[in-house]
Amino acid sequence: MREPTREGVLRAAEKIAALLPPTPVLPVEIGGQIVWAKAECLQPIGVFKIRGAWHRLSDLSEKERARGVIGVSSGNHAQGVAWAARRLGIKAAIVMPRDAPRVKLERVRAMGAEIVLYERPGEDRDAIARALAEERGATLVHPYGDPWVIEGQGSAGIELAAQLEVLEGLGAGGPPERIVTCCGGGGLAAGLALACPDAELITVEPEGWDDVARSLASGTIQSVGPNPPPTACDALQTPATWPINFAVLNGRARGVAVSEAEVRAAQRFAFAQLRLVLEPGGAAALAALLSGKVAADGRTAVLLTGGNTDAESYAAVLAEAG
Amino acid sequence: MREPTREGVLRAAEKIAALLPPTPVLPVEIGGQIVWAKAECLQPIGVFKIRGAWHRLSDLSEKERARGVIGVSSGNHAQGVAWAARRLGIKAAIVMPRDAPRVKLERVRAMGAEIVLYERPGEDRDAIARALAEERGATLVHPYGDPWVIEGQGSAGIELAAQLEVLEGLGAGGPPERIVTCCGGGGLAAGLALACPDAELITVEPEGWDDVARSLASGTIQSVGPNPPPTACDALQTPATWPINFAVLNGRARGVAVSEAEVRAAQRFAFAQLRLVLEPGGAAALAALLSGKVAADGRTAVLLTGGNTDAESYAAVLAEAG
Repeated sequence: MREPTREGVLRAAEKIAALLPPTPVLPVEIGGQIVWAKAECLQPIGVFKIRGAWHRLSDLSEKERARGVIGVSSGNHAQGVAWAARRLGIKAAIVMPRDAPRVKLERVRAMGAEIVLYERPGEDRDAIARALAEERGATLVHPYGDPWVIEGQGSAGIELAAQLEVLEGLGAGGPPERIVTCCGGGGLAAGLALACPDAELITVEPEGWDDVARSLASGTIQSVGPNPPPTACDALQTPATWPINFAVLNGRARGVAVSEAEVRAAQRFAFAQLRLVLEPGGAAALAALLSGKVAADGRTAVLLTGGNTDAESYAAVLAEAG
Repeated sequence: MREPTREGVLRAAEKIAALLPPTPVLPVEIGGQIVWAKAECLQPIGVFKIRGAWHRLSDLSEKERARGVIGVSSGNHAQGVAWAARRLGIKAAIVMPRDAPRVKLERVRAMGAEIVLYERPGEDRDAIARALAEERGATLVHPYGDPWVIEGQGSAGIELAAQLEVLEGLGAGGPPERIVTCCGGGGLAAGLALACPDAELITVEPEGWDDVARSLASGTIQSVGPNPPPTACDALQTPATWPINFAVLNGRARGVAVSEAEVRAAQRFAFAQLRLVLEPGGAAALAALLSGKVAADGRTAVLLTGGNTDAESYAAVLAEAG
């Protein structure tokens, strides 16, 4: 498999600029500092995953398009693949866990994709997807272990840097000096590393699912333990990063972990201060800043990666004493 | 008092572009049509009112600034005045109803403004504010009956038109043909009329508070009845528009009314489809489109005007069977 490149990120950014409005960068005060929040939850599918999926699928040949694509996803990448496939007239099947949020399953189905369910503990989703792709001659689009997907997600960093350059009124007027991002398998993080080579990069994962943080600390790929704790951050429940991501991130980023309570507090902060709906996995990076685990000084940007949550779970988070 | 002008709107738009990032215009599918939603709820104070307040206060002379400003508001214009006053170092007092949402009262106080409470039924807020302004020699900044405020709010229309021009990917690529906006006293509506002279303009109010709709239909200013029904749209509870607004809107716009249930359905739609938190009064225009009371064809834009609501009320709206 080819390596992702900065040139690929720039090409993806051009393709995406022709298709989608840039997501806004909102100034928000955290601990007396202005932090720049990139609201990827405002993408048409509510999550940044539309970027990588579009870059990958729109680069497929006519022959490849005719044979279809297979996605693997807890629900957000699934929506990206389904959205891009529908727009390009490509048949898509997505391997999804049976316990994926109902709202994500429904939306993938509504966009016309086929869903192949698996049981999260026990079954190997990548093996299921590989077998399906071989059987159908279809192209497998992995949620993070794919150079196009990494480059596509990185387009968020190109947009961010361009937006901060022109935002002088509230004190930006330069490239991001620190980027804090939610992290599952490391697709977005690797893309951001390629997009913004001079920015400090910090990945944020839920406690007990901080395999990327431990991988970055140790210099070799680590997996989550055999019995990870339950987490509301379904989008960040990845067992391990892939070599293609780690090759970009190793020596380049560092990782921190946030608690479930810190994530919920960040969801409430986004509700009250930003009027944005964030899903738990989309609020993890904000949680790291609000909890003080990551400093907010300098020109700090934070990725608000997704907002696909159901009304019931969200109302429960809001009801909790903040 | 001088008339608001299109030149004033353009000047306000320049001043605001130097200060604040443009709010995003998000494509959203309604009844098979793409509608362009301008998310003014993403302003730093969660509402478009920052525009008019900034245009007014930043145009005050040094002498006027030293004597302070008086605002009148159910809470959103109050935040605009408080925000602009703090940034410019001006002393601000705001006349607010005792039943204003707690979150709005708290935020105005947190921005350092003085609050003067009145009882919504019975007391005349404008008279209280005028007396206070005279007593202190301060400048009264009315929430809609003010040429600067109208021009400042109109800057949203200048931004919108510029944004739609460049959004070709999803089918925009031209000026708005129809603009649907939430309407209280008609400050934003009058500003939009000046900003986008060629667009059809539709004002949306809560049922029983549709004085602007009736004024536009009859050609003379009408007031809400003596016992208007309760509404969750506190931001749209204005007894009547002012001649300065009506002079711009009469013969230029038409109005519709939406029910409380339609407003709540629009809040839920914004949650699920746009990941945006809207307060009831900020969802009224969207409600008019979703209910089919206003057509969504052509190049239709909708103003999502505000998102200042408390967690408890919002959770109750989400919990209601959609």
